[in-house]
This record gives sequence, C-alpha cells and structure tokens, in this order.
Amino acid sequence: MAIAFLLTSTSSFAEPPTKTIAPKNIILMIGDGMGPAQIKAYRLYKDNLATAGVDPITLDAFLVGTLATEPAAAADADDHVHSTYIVTDSAASATAYSTGQRTYNGAVGVDLERQPMSTVLEQAKQVGKKVGLVATSQIVHATPASFIAHVDSRRKYNDIADAFVDNQLNEQPLLDVFLGGGWRYFKRDDRDLTKELQSFGYQIVRTRQELLTASKKVAGLFAEVALSPAIDRTDDEPSLKEMTEAAITRLDNPQGFFLMVEGSQIDWSGHANDIAGVVNEMDDFHQAIQAAIAFAEKDGDTLVIVTADHETGGLSIGRNLEKKSVYAYNVAPIKGLEQSLPAYQKEILATRNNRAFLQHSGIELTDDEQKQWKEISKKLEKEAVWKWLVGVMSRATLTGWTTNGHTGVDVNIYAFGPGATAFYGYHDNTHVGQAIRRWLTPK
Amino acid sequence: MAIAFLLTSTSSFAEPPTKTIAPKNIILMIGDGMGPAQIKAYRLYKDNLATAGVDPITLDAFLVGTLATEPAAAADADDHVHSTYIVTDSAASATAYSTGQRTYNGAVGVDLERQPMSTVLEQAKQVGKKVGLVATSQIVHATPASFIAHVDSRRKYNDIADAFVDNQLNEQPLLDVFLGGGWRYFKRDDRDLTKELQSFGYQIVRTRQELLTASKKVAGLFAEVALSPAIDRTDDEPSLKEMTEAAITRLDNPQGFFLMVEGSQIDWSGHANDIAGVVNEMDDFHQAIQAAIAFAEKDGDTLVIVTADHETGGLSIGRNLEKKSVYAYNVAPIKGLEQSLPAYQKEILATRNNRAFLQHSGIELTDDEQKQWKEISKKLEKEAVWKWLVGVMSRATLTGWTTNGHTGVDVNIYAFGPGATAFYGYHDNTHVGQAIRRWLTPK
Repeated sequence: MAIAFLLTSTSSFAEPPTKTIAPKNIILMIGDGMGPAQIKAYRLYKDNLATAGVDPITLDAFLVGTLATEPAAAADADDHVHSTYIVTDSAASATAYSTGQRTYNGAVGVDLERQPMSTVLEQAKQVGKKVGLVATSQIVHATPASFIAHVDSRRKYNDIADAFVDNQLNEQPLLDVFLGGGWRYFKRDDRDLTKELQSFGYQIVRTRQELLTASKKVAGLFAEVALSPAIDRTDDEPSLKEMTEAAITRLDNPQGFFLMVEGSQIDWSGHANDIAGVVNEMDDFHQAIQAAIAFAEKDGDTLVIVTADHETGGLSIGRNLEKKSVYAYNVAPIKGLEQSLPAYQKEILATRNNRAFLQHSGIELTDDEQKQWKEISKKLEKEAVWKWLVGVMSRATLTGWTTNGHTGVDVNIYAFGPGATAFYGYHDNTHVGQAIRRWLTPK
Repeated sequence: MAIAFLLTSTSSFAEPPTKTIAPKNIILMIGDGMGPAQIKAYRLYKDNLATAGVDPITLDAFLVGTLATEPAAAADADDHVHSTYIVTDSAASATAYSTGQRTYNGAVGVDLERQPMSTVLEQAKQVGKKVGLVATSQIVHATPASFIAHVDSRRKYNDIADAFVDNQLNEQPLLDVFLGGGWRYFKRDDRDLTKELQSFGYQIVRTRQELLTASKKVAGLFAEVALSPAIDRTDDEPSLKEMTEAAITRLDNPQGFFLMVEGSQIDWSGHANDIAGVVNEMDDFHQAIQAAIAFAEKDGDTLVIVTADHETGGLSIGRNLEKKSVYAYNVAPIKGLEQSLPAYQKEILATRNNRAFLQHSGIELTDDEQKQWKEISKKLEKEAVWKWLVGVMSRATLTGWTTNGHTGVDVNIYAFGPGATAFYGYHDNTHVGQAIRRWLTPK
C-alpha cells in the first residue's frame, strides 16, 4: 500500500529520474503527427474481428502518460492570426525532445535567440555512447535534424546536411549510423558530403540489400528525398523496422547508445487527410516499435520511449454523415487497399478510370460521389482526383478531419525499461529532453 | 531500480488491485464527452498568460492512463451504415463503469439480453457503504441512471426514476443522497415519487439554499429537466462543486461510501459544437474535482477516479482557416463571455441585435460573417442564429469540429488515493468497473 500510494502522489510523478536508474541504451521513437486518434485508428485496423472487444496493440502495454507540446513562439511574423497559443511544428517539438528547452516553430536545435543548444545526441556521444538517427523522411527533415544540427530554419536542408559531417567530436562526425532519405542534400554541386563521409570511414548505402550486407559504420540514403510511403516500398527500400534493427545492431556496445527513430510520414498522411496513409504509416512505425521493444526485453538495460511531436489533421474516429451523427467506424476499406492513396491517384490519372481503387477498397460510391466522379473524369486534374479520393475514403470509413495542419491536443507517451517511471503522468515535451539529459551527464 | 522496472512491465499494469489497497471511499467522476481535446481546451483557457509555458490544471497531476470505450453492440437495427466498430453512447459506457461489462448503446445497467447486471453502487450498499449520485443533467439521464437502474432503453426516463425508489435493500431505497435535475420525472401524474421518497425519510430540496441547509438524507431536484448551463446558473441552483461537497458531507461515515459525480453538459456543448460551453462546463466539473481531491487528501482513505465516457464533437485545438493551415489557438473570446452561447442566442432573438455577444467576446467579424449576419437578421430564425454563433466562435478561437455526435478516441483516466495504481496504463472502460467491484466484494 505504501508503494501504491506513493506513486499516486504528484511529487513522485514530478521527481527527476535518479542516476541509479539511468539506462545504458536509450531508443527515442517519435511518431510524427501521431495524436491519440491516430493510435486509435491503427488499433481498430489491427483488431482481430474474430475475438470480442478490441485487441490492444503492442504499444498499448507501455502507456505511461501524456505530453503537452506548445512551443515558445510562432515561426515568424507572418503568423496571420492574433492568437493566445501556438500549436507546435515538428522542429520546435523535436528540439524540445533533443534539448529539453522550448523554442520557436521552425527552430532546429537552436533557442529563441537562434543560438545552438546542446542535444541529447551530442551529450550521449560525449559520455562515450554510440549515436544514431533513423527516419522515413529525408534524414535532414525537422525531427532527425533537431538532434544533430543547429540551424535557425528547418527549411535550410543543405545547412542541416552539412551538420552530418561538420558536427564532430575528436575530429570525427558524431553519428555512428544514420538511415533515411535525402540523397540530394548530401550529393550537391556546392559540396559532396557523400565523399566526405566516405573519407571518414562511412559506407554509403542506397538500397535495402546494401544496408543488410553493409559494414559497421553506415550512412543510408535510400531516396532522393523521402522514402516511399510504407505500403508502396519495393524490395529496394528498407522498412522502418529493418532500418531500426540495422541501426541497433550497429550501435549496441558495452558503453551503450542513443538512437532516435522517426515514423515520419504519419504526419504527411495527416496533412493530406489520408486515413489509409495514417494507418499504413502507423503500421510501419509500430513494427519498428516492436523490434525496439524486442531488443530492450532481451537486453534488459535499454529504455524505449515512444511519443509524438503533435497531432496532425484534427483526426476523429467518427464524423457527421449527411448531417446525421454517426456512432460507428469502418476500417474495412483501408484493409483492402493494395497501394497508397497517392499511388491510386497516379493510376487514376494514367488509366482514366477508378476501377482498381473501387475494387480494392470495396467502396460503393454514393450518388453524390458518382456525380462528382463524372465531373472529375472529364478533366482529370491531379488536385480534384486527390480531393475526391480522400473524400470518399473519409466518408466510407467515417473519418473526420478539421485541418490540413497540426492541432494542439496532448500526445501520448509510452516507455519500457529502466527509467520508464520518469515519464509517468502528465508533463510537457521538454520533460523528455530534460530527463534524458540528466541520464547523460558525465559522471 | 527493481520497483521502477517492475512498474513498466505489462503484467503490473494488468494486475488486479488487491484487497490490501481497497479504499474506504470511492468517488468516481465522469466528464461526459470529455475527450483529450476538451481537457486541452480547458487547460489553455485556465492558463495564466503572465507565466511562461502552459500551467497544468489540478487534474493533470493525477493522470494515470487511457481507456478504450467501444460498446458490445450498436443501439438498434436502424444503424444506418454497415460498420466494423461502434462508437459508444453514454449509457453503454456508464454501464461498463457501473458493472464492468460491455453492453449495447442505450443499455442502462442491463446486458445484451436486456437482463439486469449488479452495479458497483448496489455492491457498495450491500457491503455497508453509503451511496450517492450527482449530475448536472436530469438525474435519470444515461450516466447516473446506469448506476441505479436496470432498463433496456435510456429513453425510458420514468422507468429509470422509479428505480430511485424501487431499487431497495432492507426495504429502503438504495441512495443516501442524489442531486441533479429531473423534477418532472419524479412528480408525475401516474406516480408521485417525491411523496414516496419523503415517506422513506428523504428531504426533497429544489434550490441551492434548501440544499445547503438540508438534513442528512437528501434528494435534490434543482430543475424540471437539466440544471442551467454552468455559466448561467443563478443563486438558486447549486454548482457541481457545491453538490459534490454536499454529497460527500452526507456520505462520509466509518463504513465508507461510493459516490458517482457527472459533469453532464460537457457532452451537450460538444453535440452543439459550442466551444465556450465545453470550456465553461469543464470549469464546473473541474471545480468539483478539486473539491473531491481536497476531501481525499484530508481523508487519506478515499480514491478519486476521474474519466470520461467518450469524446463528443471531434473537437480539435486548431483548424483550417480559409483553407490555410493554422498553428494557433485563441481562448480570448471565451474568456470575455458573460453567459452561455444559448443565452446569447436567446438575447439576439429577443433584442434583434448581436451587440452584447460581439462586445463580450471581443470578436471582429470577417466580411463573410457580417454578410451572413445581414441575411440572418432579416428573419432571425433560431437555428440560423445558433449556426452563426458557433461558426463565429469556432473561427475566432480556431476550434475544429467533425461531428454533432460522439467519436471513438480513447479517453484519459486520472486517479488519486489508495488503489490509484490499478488504473495505470491503457485499458478498456470495463476495467474500471471490474476494479471497483473487486474492492466491494463482501469479505
């Protein structure tokens, strides 16, 4: 009873983690745009209909709390409404995780005065750990960037790429492994970072096969910009799970490691109001989470933290249907799809028909949707086809959206392993960066 | 480290609470329609702008997990879409809390075969505790009803009211106190339950003053149907906090008590897509929570559980504004309001002008909104005025909504006191009813 009661008091939630529970390895996994409803949609999608009730996903077992994500300031003066609160972008929230400090939207590892702040990845390297970054976006995108670079705008991809070489300790680039997209930011006219990385002993890999057979120190750039959507990946592109496993294998060592893994494209599907994309990217991310948990279970001294930077899209499970309130949700149309919605869009534009989409999704169009299709099919404009596709998918699944941007709902945090109790309860996102920092203070 | 690690394992989350930590008193507080975004909106509203960051509300300190809320079945055969999953209504979710079992939407304390299931309130009475119900809706509404009645449809208000007399132990009605609205369901042509209750020794009170000076065993019916919206209550109507405190005072005894308190109208504001209503009803509910926590802190053997039955409205903090993605939220218009949005609606219909609303909210209308107002003011139809009001409030605050019904996102659960650890992590809503049942098993 003493323990039970102690843990329900405010002070125990707020207590900083002590050095005695510092984990050897830390894997921080960020689902970009993964709000509570995104997790719910994925759980319903994964549920075995043959069993009563909704089956939990692996992640559910490790829920420990929620995080607020407000940044310190808006991105810039063209913030077009006077407002009391700013909804975060990925850069400000990732910087909160990487430094423990709030900053402005768009800031990559810098403070409100645009000055560099040390990151947990840099600290981990300084205390003798190996460090890595994994993402399904270009690896210079806001979330991974905020752990390795110090740049005043997330849009400066080239400056961020430079940090993968120029951010050094003992005259060596910091990262022991990084895997994602973004070849074009590394192989440039003004600077060939791929050559420089090779001169520092990195093997540059560009395909899944090269990754799986590569040497120890590896830099993976599997796409010009971002990797394909999860469901469209060919045998040449690794899954997030494969990248995560490849990174862990290379990082695991007696001094420990810090690895950040991002499920990058959950966010992009949210921006596009594409529920199938959200669910399929969640699946890619969740498989990576399962791999990380499996390693942590075997290892015994690894902390896995899973959270998000913000919600994207104002997603809801259930919505108005022809002005009626609907108390239902239908994942069946998502289950039937054989490729991403953008791939169906391309196919429709190429073939001038929507048969594959309708056949795979099993959706019966409403009269209105059929009329819309007739209009659209006359011209077949890219934008109109997309709008029709997401409209039909949202209607058929009963998915609601309120925005093409981010929303301010608190995100969930999950933790497994030594130190997990540091994240029990409600905090803001800086708490995560601060907790990790404390564990990485040189002794 | 052993403790820290133990608590992060799945099994410790799932472990049933043992009798050794059974609390003497249990206060279960249900925010009807209180999804994660409703809590967020309230936190931003309460934040002190003079301090950096967003201040936590009292409730935040007690976050312990989340709950899934899917019912066992839809309400009826006229469910107009074929769907994989059902989004819960208040009756099914409240019955999960009151019995630990999933049932169909609309079910009040009955199972899928419409057979009565024993409730935690009945069990608490059987083991010698006092029991009470408090709500700001009519007290026969779905949530409180599911703890005292066994009726196959939540719409059968008269049958539910009968249970307040007819559900007995030792020839006495079960409830030691109940406070809410619903006079018309108790004082009926076919049966006068108020007289029957008096014959069993209840003092019937109808105003705040009568409540505050009443004798021990009290039945409060402060409105014909529901109490007024929180912000519109006069000195004659008690706040939810006052009702909670009055109930606790009457229930507190050496054998302990079970009390259910509902913040009923958060849900109604969600159905109406009225963000000001959501925030003001959250405030009424949160003040009641603070009162319950204050009692539990002093008492030392009281468990306070706070959760929701479901989310209502598909609320998001942030939304599209004229097709732009907006990264902001503005609570200022809510802070200025001096009455509920329905009250402004009435005022507009009576005075034929919108000056008070505009002055109090401080909102500057867009050109479109001004044009709409000109059209509306020609006829001044109730519905059109309401639509305009919620449209303006949503635009000015940057609030998004997807539905006039419920959505399926997981709800938060908060707990304070002995036994709180039973709710750590992710569960479904039946877990709450099952945990409470175990503590109430006769020894």
